[in-house]
Amino acid sequence: MKLANLIGNRFKERPSDCVIDSHALMIKGGYMKYVTNGIYSKNPPLKRITRKIENIIREEMDAIDGQEVQFPVILPGSLWEESGRFESVGNELLRFKDRNNIPMVLGMTHEEAAVHLVRDYGTSYTKYPFMIYQIQTKFRDEARPRGGLIRVREFTMKDAYSFHTTQEDLQQYYEECLSAYNRIFKRVGIEEVITVASDSGMMGGSISHEYMLLTPVGEDSLAICNECGYSANLDTAENIIHNEAVGQLEELKIEHTPNASTIESVVNYLNSKVEYSCKAVVYQRMKDATYVVVFTRGDMDINETKLAKQVGDEVYPATITEESGIIAGFIGPYHFTGKATLLFDSSLKNINSLVCGANQKDYHYTGFNIERDYGKVKYVDLSKIQNGGVCPHCGKKSISICRGIEVGNIFQLGTKYTKAMNMTYIDDKGEEKYPIMGCYGIGVGRLAASVCEAHHDEYGPIWPMSIAPWQVHVCCLRADDKDTKTTADNLYENLLNENIEVIYDDREVRAGVMFSDADLLGVPIRIIVSPRNLKNECVEIVTRDKNIQKKVGFDEIIITVKELINEMMN
Amino acid sequence: MKLANLIGNRFKERPSDCVIDSHALMIKGGYMKYVTNGIYSKNPPLKRITRKIENIIREEMDAIDGQEVQFPVILPGSLWEESGRFESVGNELLRFKDRNNIPMVLGMTHEEAAVHLVRDYGTSYTKYPFMIYQIQTKFRDEARPRGGLIRVREFTMKDAYSFHTTQEDLQQYYEECLSAYNRIFKRVGIEEVITVASDSGMMGGSISHEYMLLTPVGEDSLAICNECGYSANLDTAENIIHNEAVGQLEELKIEHTPNASTIESVVNYLNSKVEYSCKAVVYQRMKDATYVVVFTRGDMDINETKLAKQVGDEVYPATITEESGIIAGFIGPYHFTGKATLLFDSSLKNINSLVCGANQKDYHYTGFNIERDYGKVKYVDLSKIQNGGVCPHCGKKSISICRGIEVGNIFQLGTKYTKAMNMTYIDDKGEEKYPIMGCYGIGVGRLAASVCEAHHDEYGPIWPMSIAPWQVHVCCLRADDKDTKTTADNLYENLLNENIEVIYDDREVRAGVMFSDADLLGVPIRIIVSPRNLKNECVEIVTRDKNIQKKVGFDEIIITVKELINEMMN
Repeated sequence: MKLANLIGNRFKERPSDCVIDSHALMIKGGYMKYVTNGIYSKNPPLKRITRKIENIIREEMDAIDGQEVQFPVILPGSLWEESGRFESVGNELLRFKDRNNIPMVLGMTHEEAAVHLVRDYGTSYTKYPFMIYQIQTKFRDEARPRGGLIRVREFTMKDAYSFHTTQEDLQQYYEECLSAYNRIFKRVGIEEVITVASDSGMMGGSISHEYMLLTPVGEDSLAICNECGYSANLDTAENIIHNEAVGQLEELKIEHTPNASTIESVVNYLNSKVEYSCKAVVYQRMKDATYVVVFTRGDMDINETKLAKQVGDEVYPATITEESGIIAGFIGPYHFTGKATLLFDSSLKNINSLVCGANQKDYHYTGFNIERDYGKVKYVDLSKIQNGGVCPHCGKKSISICRGIEVGNIFQLGTKYTKAMNMTYIDDKGEEKYPIMGCYGIGVGRLAASVCEAHHDEYGPIWPMSIAPWQVHVCCLRADDKDTKTTADNLYENLLNENIEVIYDDREVRAGVMFSDADLLGVPIRIIVSPRNLKNECVEIVTRDKNIQKKVGFDEIIITVKELINEMMN
Repeated sequence: MKLANLIGNRFKERPSDCVIDSHALMIKGGYMKYVTNGIYSKNPPLKRITRKIENIIREEMDAIDGQEVQFPVILPGSLWEESGRFESVGNELLRFKDRNNIPMVLGMTHEEAAVHLVRDYGTSYTKYPFMIYQIQTKFRDEARPRGGLIRVREFTMKDAYSFHTTQEDLQQYYEECLSAYNRIFKRVGIEEVITVASDSGMMGGSISHEYMLLTPVGEDSLAICNECGYSANLDTAENIIHNEAVGQLEELKIEHTPNASTIESVVNYLNSKVEYSCKAVVYQRMKDATYVVVFTRGDMDINETKLAKQVGDEVYPATITEESGIIAGFIGPYHFTGKATLLFDSSLKNINSLVCGANQKDYHYTGFNIERDYGKVKYVDLSKIQNGGVCPHCGKKSISICRGIEVGNIFQLGTKYTKAMNMTYIDDKGEEKYPIMGCYGIGVGRLAASVCEAHHDEYGPIWPMSIAPWQVHVCCLRADDKDTKTTADNLYENLLNENIEVIYDDREVRAGVMFSDADLLGVPIRIIVSPRNLKNECVEIVTRDKNIQKKVGFDEIIITVKELINEMMN
């Protein structure tokens, strides 16, 4: 199509409210338009990109015997009541009532709908295994949408659900899906995506993996081992601390520590080591606001996902009231005041003498030994693994903490949903069993933004050929010059006749405007037709990544472009 | 794919709760599954059909320079407040609040979103005309979903919006779109769809057309002229009645008509003609429940859409209370009691003497002459045109009333939305103007159901090649016979290698089961491999519509199938 007719505004300046580049460039380039918090309309270039991504996903899902279906966006609340998630999921699940006062929800994930669709079908073991998937709009009422398409409220997602009769069969299919995902990320141009073990969260199930694009602007934190290649989300990476009976075994003593209400100030005041201190971090449970106090080594931070899993509920940083009896800033396990669940992080294990709060304003204990003074406790892994930490896989102190964007995830769900929703089949011995499920998601818009994040320069996105909005961008420099215009018009027609996707800029604008628009659209191959080239009976072909820049004679344009497209598609 | 792996149940019996055939067959054939009132999940065969329909629509929209975009499903209420429809649209618009208590709506149509997307783009006349479209999920909280996919609450729709600087330009594009629609309906296999003039309803604007598939199970009523081809929705077809000073001019007299509270009983009791009677039909306004009494000829029925347009509000059949002062069953214009707007349908014009209610229980007037006894009135067209009525176009008494399914609609919206939402452009004289809009809709699921309604037999749908879930259905009769199975397996592979879409039934089931499943899936070409055919080195090729049934030698299968696909695609 002609660029002059393409709807959507492109801007000269970077929008002021964009923190990450992909967001800024996709707004600046007229790819999408903000409608309201976390909700965008897509302009034609982005729609073309996401359709290509969807087709790649579709091909790879079909290749592993996926059957495309479509679940509703708007679901009856009763279906979510069957699984228990109508109650258990937080505010991200948008609930409302229809005109007949029936509770409904906006689908944010479709396990319930998937079980509903095949519950009457999968009644015999002979029907298994099978996988169904859809590519559909979802809504998640995020508290804090951010980063353009990285975290939105309304999004298009490919979600797949597989059903199996044995764990081995699920495992095998899970591996197939893992490979399919790797092919998808390779085909859309971000082969560098890594797989990390992750927490299943509200999905349930035990084993799950996330696909991460490593980038400093990512919103997830990862632990990666530089030695063995181990990688995991910070929410699941075990924080291994080797304290082999560290420090002297001292006498328990109470010390006056005026105004020393942070671990740094106490350690400083007492001139002790932070590694021999016991810090208290206080949370409240989502359900009933009761308190949970986590004790950890002074130099550690608590991972709230691990904690939530431990207490079996969401938690949030506590507001410590006077009535609670908890003495903020001076909390310790010994003679703890107030009503709370006390938890001990494993980083405290084997430390002989600790500094800890004395549960009185301006007082701390020194020489506190947990086993001797408090009693036997169960240490649990609740703190975050740190840079240089011990790799849970190879045991070396070789962990790096990186950031990444989650571009896909896969879960082994087990029988959580089939049991809750009473989906059964008769096995080959005539016994009634619950099918075992896996589920597999990829956010289409987030994937587009991630590719942009991975492939761009300061001027715009550099779209891989496989998902570029167009394959070729023809620039007619000096459209006011009759011969040049005729040549460019003919070239445009010839390329279209070869079924090449072309965006054609024949506007009478300065070369600078033309090229900066072309940079923003990020089309892989650019052909420049100009009076100067015309004289030499050639055009200039430049790739968006600047790797190729050459003059090509008129006769060879089509063949050169076709070859380039082929090369760049792989 | 193999039929044995296809998810979804097929049933022997027609489901009891289905009124129309397409609904029954699509449930029976495992095309979809009921989730809740007016909401379905799509199984793979239906998903394949709708994707093909979507691609046909996309091609035709692109061919008239449409640019595909995507609007959100979930829209901020503020956008609908801008257009005034947040208030004016009834309960079909589902309104709710998000986690931050912001009013949101589920998009049921996207005029507001379209104007929002291009408001900042279309600021100069040089950008016009342009058309944007999307294929997207919509939700309309229908009071009475019915007929399977014919009237649902959640549906996929192609909605297009064009923007113009002159009415002539809109008109010209409207004609282009009309042709594109005709091509779409032809390509999906229902060329017989007719275009009818229609009422714009809540969309606003003046000129609009509906595309109707004529079928007795349709939910719309149409007036079609057998002479000149005129066609219109009953809601817009003028009801022309020629009463040239009919009947004697009589004296106004009051008559005792005990218990005669219906027009039939009065006419019967007084031994007069129903054509000389004046019937009262009472409605209430949606806004304030005030009364509207419509007087019409005794043999006419009121069209509520015409009435709503006349009173500028939705209306509903009245509940006549004692306080209203209206004497139900004995209402007449002369000395009318109660507080109501009185309207006179044009069917009453020029009748000299009428029987009408006397506004007293058990009394009617005879010899009532509207002009003499009541005064000058403005007659308006409020009644339904009837079978044998006068064609508003050619004037002949040649109107037939038919029923149809609306499969598409197009509207000339004018400046209703651009004005309300303050979208302007600067014209070539530097003046600020409002762009003129058109909008164009096709429901994808309803179109699939309509094709099924138009093309089926008692055994199942007969899908046109262009949208069939698969092109070829291979039946291996006697899969337990090794040679037959090998032949069928090879044929399946060969067809796949030729990029032909094949569903392959190699189940060890009786021929009856196999054929009835094939009938339900409605695939256009069936190839039967059986031991008997094997002996003659041939297969049997049968088309689903039974027009072709022939034996084809092994060597000629692929070429025959390819030819058939080509023929049947057109």
